[in-house]
This record gives sequence, C-alpha cells and structure tokens, in this order.
Amino acid sequence: MINVGIAGASGYTGVELVKLISNHPKTKLCAVTSNSYKGKSLTDIFPSMRGFENLIFESLDIQSSARKIDIMFLALPHKISMQYVPALLEQGIKVVDLSADYRFTDAAAYESAYQEHTSKHLLKESVYGLCEIYRDSIKSANLVGNPGCYPTSILIPLLPLLKEDLIQTDGIISDSKSGVSGAGRSLSLAAHFCEANESFTAYKVGSHRHTPEINEILSIHSQQKMAITFVPHLLPLTRGMLSTIYVQTKKGVFEDKIRKTLNAYYAEEPFVSILDKNMYPAISHVKGTNRCDIGFYFDENTKKIIIISTIDNLVKGAAGQAVQNMNIMFGFDETAGLNAFQGPL
Amino acid sequence: MINVGIAGASGYTGVELVKLISNHPKTKLCAVTSNSYKGKSLTDIFPSMRGFENLIFESLDIQSSARKIDIMFLALPHKISMQYVPALLEQGIKVVDLSADYRFTDAAAYESAYQEHTSKHLLKESVYGLCEIYRDSIKSANLVGNPGCYPTSILIPLLPLLKEDLIQTDGIISDSKSGVSGAGRSLSLAAHFCEANESFTAYKVGSHRHTPEINEILSIHSQQKMAITFVPHLLPLTRGMLSTIYVQTKKGVFEDKIRKTLNAYYAEEPFVSILDKNMYPAISHVKGTNRCDIGFYFDENTKKIIIISTIDNLVKGAAGQAVQNMNIMFGFDETAGLNAFQGPL
Amino acid sequence: MINVGIAGASGYTGVELVKLISNHPKTKLCAVTSNSYKGKSLTDIFPSMRGFENLIFESLDIQSSARKIDIMFLALPHKISMQYVPALLEQGIKVVDLSADYRFTDAAAYESAYQEHTSKHLLKESVYGLCEIYRDSIKSANLVGNPGCYPTSILIPLLPLLKEDLIQTDGIISDSKSGVSGAGRSLSLAAHFCEANESFTAYKVGSHRHTPEINEILSIHSQQKMAITFVPHLLPLTRGMLSTIYVQTKKGVFEDKIRKTLNAYYAEEPFVSILDKNMYPAISHVKGTNRCDIGFYFDENTKKIIIISTIDNLVKGAAGQAVQNMNIMFGFDETAGLNAFQGPL
Amino acid sequence: MINVGIAGASGYTGVELVKLISNHPKTKLCAVTSNSYKGKSLTDIFPSMRGFENLIFESLDIQSSARKIDIMFLALPHKISMQYVPALLEQGIKVVDLSADYRFTDAAAYESAYQEHTSKHLLKESVYGLCEIYRDSIKSANLVGNPGCYPTSILIPLLPLLKEDLIQTDGIISDSKSGVSGAGRSLSLAAHFCEANESFTAYKVGSHRHTPEINEILSIHSQQKMAITFVPHLLPLTRGMLSTIYVQTKKGVFEDKIRKTLNAYYAEEPFVSILDKNMYPAISHVKGTNRCDIGFYFDENTKKIIIISTIDNLVKGAAGQAVQNMNIMFGFDETAGLNAFQGPL
Repeated sequence: MINVGIAGASGYTGVELVKLISNHPKTKLCAVTSNSYKGKSLTDIFPSMRGFENLIFESLDIQSSARKIDIMFLALPHKISMQYVPALLEQGIKVVDLSADYRFTDAAAYESAYQEHTSKHLLKESVYGLCEIYRDSIKSANLVGNPGCYPTSILIPLLPLLKEDLIQTDGIISDSKSGVSGAGRSLSLAAHFCEANESFTAYKVGSHRHTPEINEILSIHSQQKMAITFVPHLLPLTRGMLSTIYVQTKKGVFEDKIRKTLNAYYAEEPFVSILDKNMYPAISHVKGTNRCDIGFYFDENTKKIIIISTIDNLVKGAAGQAVQNMNIMFGFDETAGLNAFQGPL
Repeated sequence: MINVGIAGASGYTGVELVKLISNHPKTKLCAVTSNSYKGKSLTDIFPSMRGFENLIFESLDIQSSARKIDIMFLALPHKISMQYVPALLEQGIKVVDLSADYRFTDAAAYESAYQEHTSKHLLKESVYGLCEIYRDSIKSANLVGNPGCYPTSILIPLLPLLKEDLIQTDGIISDSKSGVSGAGRSLSLAAHFCEANESFTAYKVGSHRHTPEINEILSIHSQQKMAITFVPHLLPLTRGMLSTIYVQTKKGVFEDKIRKTLNAYYAEEPFVSILDKNMYPAISHVKGTNRCDIGFYFDENTKKIIIISTIDNLVKGAAGQAVQNMNIMFGFDETAGLNAFQGPL
Repeated sequence: MINVGIAGASGYTGVELVKLISNHPKTKLCAVTSNSYKGKSLTDIFPSMRGFENLIFESLDIQSSARKIDIMFLALPHKISMQYVPALLEQGIKVVDLSADYRFTDAAAYESAYQEHTSKHLLKESVYGLCEIYRDSIKSANLVGNPGCYPTSILIPLLPLLKEDLIQTDGIISDSKSGVSGAGRSLSLAAHFCEANESFTAYKVGSHRHTPEINEILSIHSQQKMAITFVPHLLPLTRGMLSTIYVQTKKGVFEDKIRKTLNAYYAEEPFVSILDKNMYPAISHVKGTNRCDIGFYFDENTKKIIIISTIDNLVKGAAGQAVQNMNIMFGFDETAGLNAFQGPL
Repeated sequence: MINVGIAGASGYTGVELVKLISNHPKTKLCAVTSNSYKGKSLTDIFPSMRGFENLIFESLDIQSSARKIDIMFLALPHKISMQYVPALLEQGIKVVDLSADYRFTDAAAYESAYQEHTSKHLLKESVYGLCEIYRDSIKSANLVGNPGCYPTSILIPLLPLLKEDLIQTDGIISDSKSGVSGAGRSLSLAAHFCEANESFTAYKVGSHRHTPEINEILSIHSQQKMAITFVPHLLPLTRGMLSTIYVQTKKGVFEDKIRKTLNAYYAEEPFVSILDKNMYPAISHVKGTNRCDIGFYFDENTKKIIIISTIDNLVKGAAGQAVQNMNIMFGFDETAGLNAFQGPL
C-alpha cells in the first residue's frame, strides 16, 4: 500500500486520476490539491463523485506532502509543474508529471514549443512514460513525463515499425481527432456547448505543441531527425481520440510483415490490441479503458499503410497511462486498477 | 462463487449484465444466449468487450442450463420470458426476469397492458425487485420481477412518503425523460441518429405500459387504488433517466417533515441519496452507477413538492438493480460488483 | 423599406436577428452594436455569416442611431436595456426590447424578480409582445417587451383556455425543457460542452425569473391572482424548447371542447398549429422556424389535459417573435421574413 | 417558371430538395415520389414540413410525369436511377440524377465499383455536375450526374491546383469526415443513435465507392491516371462534411502561388470561399448552406499543403448542388433558391 497525492485534481484529468487511484488495490489517496477549489470537497465540485465528501482540496504544499505521500501525480498546466517537481524529488517523492514539462530530452525543443525550462538538469533523469516502449527505464525512474494524448495514439503503432525499419521516415502524416475533454475544464468559446456541438474543425494546423514531442521520440528511435505532418481536429463528443496515420512502407515490405511485426511487438501487452484484417477501431470500443486499439489497411498500389489508432484521451492518453507508470515504478501488476471498462455504451 | 447465465445478452441491458457479472467477486459467468447472434462471440458483436472472445452466444436451452447455473437473468422481451421461466424454476434455477412478465401481482393488470399471462400462478410467488423496498421478500425469492426503469425512478422517492401518509394519493404527476438506450438496440426510426439527435419529444402520452406497473405498487402501499399521470419523453443522449415528480402534500406537512422522512428511510441505503436543500441531481451524476439521486423543492404557496429523481436507466433501471437483487437472493454484500462508477465525464 | 438597428448583435439572439432582418423584404440593416467586439465585422465573429464582412460592430450611440434608424431591437441583458430605451423613444425610434425590462405591467413584480426599474413610467405604454394575443395593442406600440422563451411556449396554449374559462386557475404545472443556446453565448460551466453533453438536469427550481412573467400575464387574463408551478430543465441540444403542461379542466369540460377552442383560436394564425389527436410535437419539427406546435392529451379519469408545446427558443422564443412584432408595428405582412424553415434535419 | 418532380423525396436528400425547390423563385414543385410512403403526404412523414399537407407521395410513373414536368431530380439509390433515366430523357424531361449512375464517363470504372450499367450510351452525354468546373457543359446538358458528397469536398480545392500543374499527382491523401445523414434515412446499426453517438470511426477503408469517382475526374484533368488515398470517417453529428487533404507541391511552388491560384479561380464563385491565411473552416460555418469553405496551410519544410475543405453534405454535397445544376441548365441566376443560410447555430 502506497500513499498517493494528486495535484490539480479538479480538472478532468485530475478527477479521472482520483477515480482510478481510489479503485486501485495498492494505493491510498492521501491528498488532492486545487487552487480554484481549496477548502471544498471533491464531491462538492463533482457531484458524481459520491463518497468523496471528506476529501478536501488543499493547496499544494511540498513540506506537508513530504510527510505523507510516496508518489505525486501532477495534473497541472505546463510551466506550473516545473515549479514543484524539483522540490518534490528532493523530498524523496516520486513524480508522474502529466504536463509537458518533463517529456522532452532536448531542452531546446521544449523551449521552442513552450517556454524557458527552469530545471533542465532533470530532463536527463526524467523518463518518457510511454509504458509499452520505456517500461525498463520507468521501473527505476523517480520522475516520469507522462506522454501527451496525441503522441500516445501515434507513437504506439509507429515505433515498432520504425524500429524494425519497415517504414519510410519522411512523409508520415497523422490526421488526429480528439473529444472536447482534451481541452480541459477551463472555459473557452471553442468548448462552449453551442459552438462545439454539431460541428467539427481542424485547429492549430501546423503549430500544435504535441508535434515536437512526437518528433523527438520518433527521431530517437530512428536515429535520424524526423518531422511528421500532424493535424489535430476537434470532435463533438466528450471523450476519446482517433488518429488516422498514413505511412509509406519501405521497398519489399508488405502487409504480412507489418502485421507480424505489430502482433509480435504487442502480443503480451494487456492494453494494446492489433485488430484483425478489415477490422477498424472506434472510439466507443475503448472509451473508459486504458486500451489502445489499432487497425490498419495496406494499399497494394501505393504501398502505403493506413493505421487507425484509438484511445480514451483521459485514460491511456492521460490518467490511465499515469497509473500504469506508477504500477511499473512500484513493481505492481501493471494492470492493477486499470481493468475497469465502460462496455459498449 | 455461483454460476450465472444471461439470456438475451446481445441487447444493451444484456451486455450491461455481462459487464457487471464479469466484474463481480462472487459470480462466474457460464452462459450467454442470443437468438440473433448464436455462435458468435460476445467480442465479435461488441468490440468494446475485449476479453470475451471465448464467450459464445448459445440458444437458450433449459436442460443444458440446469446442469451448470444457479441463477439466470432474463434480458428478454416480455412474453418471451414467460416461455422459459416456469421450466427454469422447475430445474431449481433462480431467476431474475428483466421483462415485465413477473412484475405484477394482479394478472388482469398485466393482461390489460401486455397480453395473456401463461403462468399466472407464478405471480403469487414472484417478488417485485425494487430492492430498497422489497428486500426482505427478495431474500427468499426464487423469482424476481426486476422493475421497469421509469417505475424505479418514480417509486423510490414516492413510497416512503406514501407509507408515512405525507402526500395526497391523487394528482401525482411524473414528467419523466429517458435516454435513447431505453429503447434498446433494435432498429427504429425513433432511435435513428438523425431523428433523435438535436430533438426531444414526449411519446406514448397516456399509454405507456409502465403506468399500470407504477400504479399497482403505489396502490399496494397506500391500500387504495391510485393512478398517477405519467408522461415519458425521449432525451438526445445515450444513457440516463430523470423524473420530475409533482406531488401535493397533506395538510400540515412541511419541507422539514419530508426531508426527515426521506433521509431516515434511505440513510443506510448505499445506492439512494437524498440531496441537500437547493441541490438537484443531473443525469451525469449517476451515469454508469447503480445510484438513485433525489433532490426536492417544497413550494410554500402551493404545498407541492417537486421531486427530481435520476438514475442510469441501464444500471439501477435494469442490469444494476438485477445484480443487486441477485446479491440479496444469495446473501452477498448488496453492493458487491456494483461499486464501479464513471466519474464526471 | 425601413431602417433597422440591432443592439447586442454578437449574442446568439442578436445574430439570429441579423439573419432574419437581412433576409426580410422590407428592412435594411443599418447598424449592429456589440460592446465585446466593437470594430470587428460580423463575419469576423461568426464565420458562418458570410457576406457580412462590411457590417462592423459599433458601440451603442443613441444620437447617431437617431439619424438613421426607424426601429431598434435590443438583444441586451436586462438592466442594460433600461439604460437606452427612454432615449431611443425620445428620438422617435421604435423599440422591441428582448430583455425582461419592459415585459411587466407591474413594476413591483419586475423589481422583486430583477432589480429597481429606472423607467417605470414606460411600463404603462410598453406592450407585451406575444403577437397572437396582443396583436391589436402591438400595432400602435412604440415599445414592445418581447416575451421570454419559456413564457411564449406556455402562454400560447394556456391563454385561450383561460379566456374561455375551461381550466382551473390553480394547480397548473409546466415542466419545461430548453436547449443550451437559451443560456446565451457567455461562458459558464453549465454550458461547457463536457458538462452539458450527455446530461440533463433541472435548474432554478422554484426560482426562475420567467415565473413572475408567466404569472402576471395569466393573472391579467383570468382576472385573478394566478401562480403556476414552473420547472425549467437543460437539454443536451443547441436549439429548441418543449413545455409539458399539466392543467385541470373545469367541470363539464371535455376533450372536444378543448380541441374546438384551441382550433378556433389559432385557426388563422400562421405560426401556431394545433396537432391532431394522438400527435405530439418534437423540437425537430419547429427548429429554425417561428412556429409553436401544440399537441394535447385529455385524461378521461382525472380530467386533466396534458399539453405539449414546442418552439425554437431563438426564433418564436426570441428573435423571430421580435421580427413578428416589428411586422405588426409597421403594418407589414406578419409572416414577412419569417417563412424560412430548416426541414427535418 | 418550370415544373419540377422529385423522385425519392422521402429520403433525407429528397426532402432537402423539396425544401429548396419549394423556396425557389422560378420553380413549381409538381410531383414527389416515394415507394415506401405512396399515398401519404409529405407532412405526414416529415412533420417539420408544415404546409405540404397536400403534397402526396406518388409512385414514379414516367408517362404521367411527362405531361407535367420539365425536370426530374432523382434522389434514388444507384441502379434504381438507371431504370428510369432513359425513359425520362425520351419524354424530353431533363434529369439531375443524384445517384452514382451517370457520374462516370468510363463504364468499366462504374461497373467495377457498382454493377452492370444498363444504359452505357448515356454516359457520353451525361455531364458531371460539379458546377464550378463543368458549368459550360451543364448549360446544354439534358442529363447531369450530380457529384458525390465526398468528391465535391475534395475536387473543388484540388482541380485548380491540378490544372495549373502546381501539385504532384501521386501521394494525394484525403482524410474525410461525414455526418450521419450521409448514410441516409434507412435503418442500420451504424446509424443507431446509441452506436453513433459519442463515437467516431473510419469505415470502408480502401474500398469506398467514391474513390473511383474522384480518381476519374482527377485523371481527366491531369491527363494521367491518378489514384488518391481516401479514408472516410463517421462523425457523431447530423449534417456536414470536412475533408483534410494532404498534397505535395511541385518544385518551386510556394504558398503564395497556391493562394493566388485558388483565389483567382474562385474569386467570382458565389459558393466557394478561400479563407485567409491561418483561418480554417468548421462544419458549423457552412451547415445549411450551399457553400464550400476552404482553408489551407503550407508546410515550409515538407512543401506539403494541407487543405481543409468543408461543405454541408446534404446541400453542396447533394440537394443544393443539384439545384445549382438546374439553375445552370435553365439559365436562371445560379444562386436562385440557394441563398438561405442557417447562421452560427
């Protein structure tokens, strides 16, 4: 049994963490923080969270945290995370940071997309928390940078193909679509019901901050500088994400090789499924789960593969993967607390 | 550990039962039946149900069932249930029937709303499975008629007030609203996306079959013939139900008395919550849970109370309550397998 | 051809007015005002409004307005309207005010629900703009208080029955449901996509400000103090409103009399339809139109009638009725500019 | 004034045609046909279509049609259209066919995607009704094959770039997303509210029948065999379509050249808009209109352009473009009857 704190627990990702941690067999939820709702109970703010009437939002206080918790999840905006992480680590508290602050190895890449990094030295020891890929490093990590939702949906199918040298490194396109919860609980016109409902649009075309994150990881694995074309879109639904990824195979690589590689790579993974030929995933198939479902089509004429990858942006794309990272860090069964599923509706 | 069968497991209620039973600590799911999908696996039909690749839909066969199961849930249409229940009981299998076939005590009331009843003798021994009210009878029941979704949302708040003689028995109105999943998975124009989306309407005004079910239970508890006004409406959302109930209080009954009565009645109930003054429930607060949340407003001028009651039509309104009934019948912890919740989104 | 100004044109009601006025055969749109978007074009703010690139939001300036416009629509919040109306009238500009400021005859009723009224003397000359009922007074009015959306959906079916003395004046209940656009374009958690989507709830139970508005009009027509029970709910859809109204008929009044009365009263009305027996309206039937569709059920046992009334909250419930009022004030064909319709989808 | 017939008027496209034609200043709607609803009025089937109580669905009878109509719109499934078109033309009736039957020049291409063509000789004289591109041929056409919705959204932005030789002809990808109305009013599990709502998925990956239609038109204009990668997806909304198109520019072609070309090509077109730099269209911007809005991003690094193109699948993607074709065929103002718009909501 370990003691857990969740900072930023009044956002959609934070409350998803509360839900997962409170159902987890090996954890005790000891502290939740929120600047906006300090002093209120979790149930006050989220009436669906019955039974949390005594869990009161505190402000984030490193000293008091140190006395009681083994791991802190930070569901804070980037830049804010950096203000707390060094002190948490010094207190011997392990950290899974869900912001972008510790996802990058290359500080310059981070700084060009975000802002000045105030604890660059930690980028060397932080581990990118894409569990299926970085499991071994995560085991001994004290600081995990939990991947972005879009990167998760894109990197899981691409990395095995890249490692096996089956695909061209240039010309990769990911046309990705996310539900509105990806924009968080903060108010904005784009997330106003009447503006998002019955509409659909691309946004931040050519400038989304997840692009350098994706590119850095791809580049590391291919050992060359890679730059994908990434276009995010906003779906009129609450939770879920689907990426349609277009990739050119290398000469002599055919459908069978692709399938065998993906199957082999993920055969033992509890949360990644490679669908059978002619089967494609839907957001409804993974909603409320920590799964990533992947289907693909091989075009005989163009030798392109079209990969369809889907996750729940709040689970495998955020809180679920964060818990999976914790499970790895503490040697728990990797699926502990992550077996719930929502069913077809 | 008991062995469970689910008949009609390819409908929305049936698959919700599969989900609950497979997460239940005391049950083993041994058989699922479906006429439409015989021979297919559950995962074939519901790709979100990963891990059920080996659970194959059978046709309903009483003899083979008898050898392996302790309890059968029937998520079948009314009339079809009646064809199987007598034989199941004879085989010593306990039954929770989710159709209307065994909800009535009065065969004539059933027959006027549905059709001829072919096992009237069983109506005497079947118990109406509204758990919080009929718990004692359910304990020893072999056959439970699981309540309708609308009746559940209406009877839970009304029955304590009626028993304590706080409300007038005439003039009760329930203006109820249900999500589209209440209509099931069968195709219909009313459930066609383009027809239900961005619309809202009343249906079966003055003729919904849940009316006599509600009236019978109310009449039994008030020991007089009662007839409420009930108007169901179709909401453009998938799951959830909310009833707004208008009731005249008896002379001398004020807000405080109502609140004390409801609080006292449901204080120890794990699945029923009486909200504080000025708090009203929303469908999102109970979605994915077995809860019934109740808020009310007392109008000083008219001495009316306006009760807002909300449930998830597929859980407390169907599969969840069915499992709760099973828990009572077998002496399990009543909340076993029913603690999952979906969180705010 | 008359010159029209629209104040508050950057809200949902305001832009609906822009749409209607710009398609109207007898009007020229001369000015639009917006505090938030001064200097921007209408198309900048609403990209769907192609062709309005040169219509620039101004601040509201009575002097400059006076030189060019014949009528001003005020789609402003209550209290703000009062600041401008007296001066507009002094300049000889006719006004249709869509706020609540000039809907009341009784200043005290207004003040108890809203705030101090700063131009009480105008309440005597302002006309309540429920077109089908107050047409004669509207013809010569200089100031029209455009009705609230909920009152419109409730009063249209009730007033004829009240006038003909067919219904009991006490015990009337309206269970009303509105789309999210009724809450306007301002940001709020209740209108955040993830909070409203897949949910449904009652709000302002017992305290909605449309209640005194409804009560005042009912009281005037029944010549006695009336107070209805009114419960508004929030639907997960963008536009449309449906009220389910429960009324006790007077002794000796049966279905036939009700139907004849409503049919006779609205036979010649282009925007009000009384549906045939067993037909009930849906929001999708009136979306995008200025219509009010009404169906009803007479309960033989209780002698109650259940009236289902539906409008588009932005059209007949706001901008459309405002234009209808203008048509009456200027002697235009009452349907001018209001014949567009959206079709089934 | 011309006389118009609409075959298949009880589908979503058919009823959209009824709406447009009945609002058109130069047309009289003389006949509507429907196999399913013969003898019923249009208002019976679509209660939102008030005022069409006397428009009765007939069965399609060429002889009786010949006496009264100048043009017939066929909103019938492919294969069914072919059964009527030759006889209609023989009777001197002009035809706009909204099925795929007369969209192809190459009968073999049609037959490989659909079925045997029973009036191949007409493919030479039928004109592909993409108005902005084939206007001159449409003027004198007796038979127009109205384009598919996906092809419309893709070809409008691509054809000018292809004609001016600015883009590579291989490697074009269109990731397209459509609302559920694109699947029509026929019942299917995919269009069941509970299955489509809160989900999103790709479908017919690598096999959608609009692919050969797109390829044929592209090939004609580039004078070489082209084959794009096209992946359609299903959006959880009723109407609207958005295509995200990825194209490699030719050497030496930069953003400015692309912009100038598209602007020049569509400068005078009433229904096509090229958005300013950094502006991207949303489905809500064109819903209910005959417009195609196009935004694009030029990636300096890869020299790719990302084009975002959006239409209302029922209007510019079907009924609206059909009416636009009629306007061209009869020499009417091309925008006649097509100026309505829905506004931001």
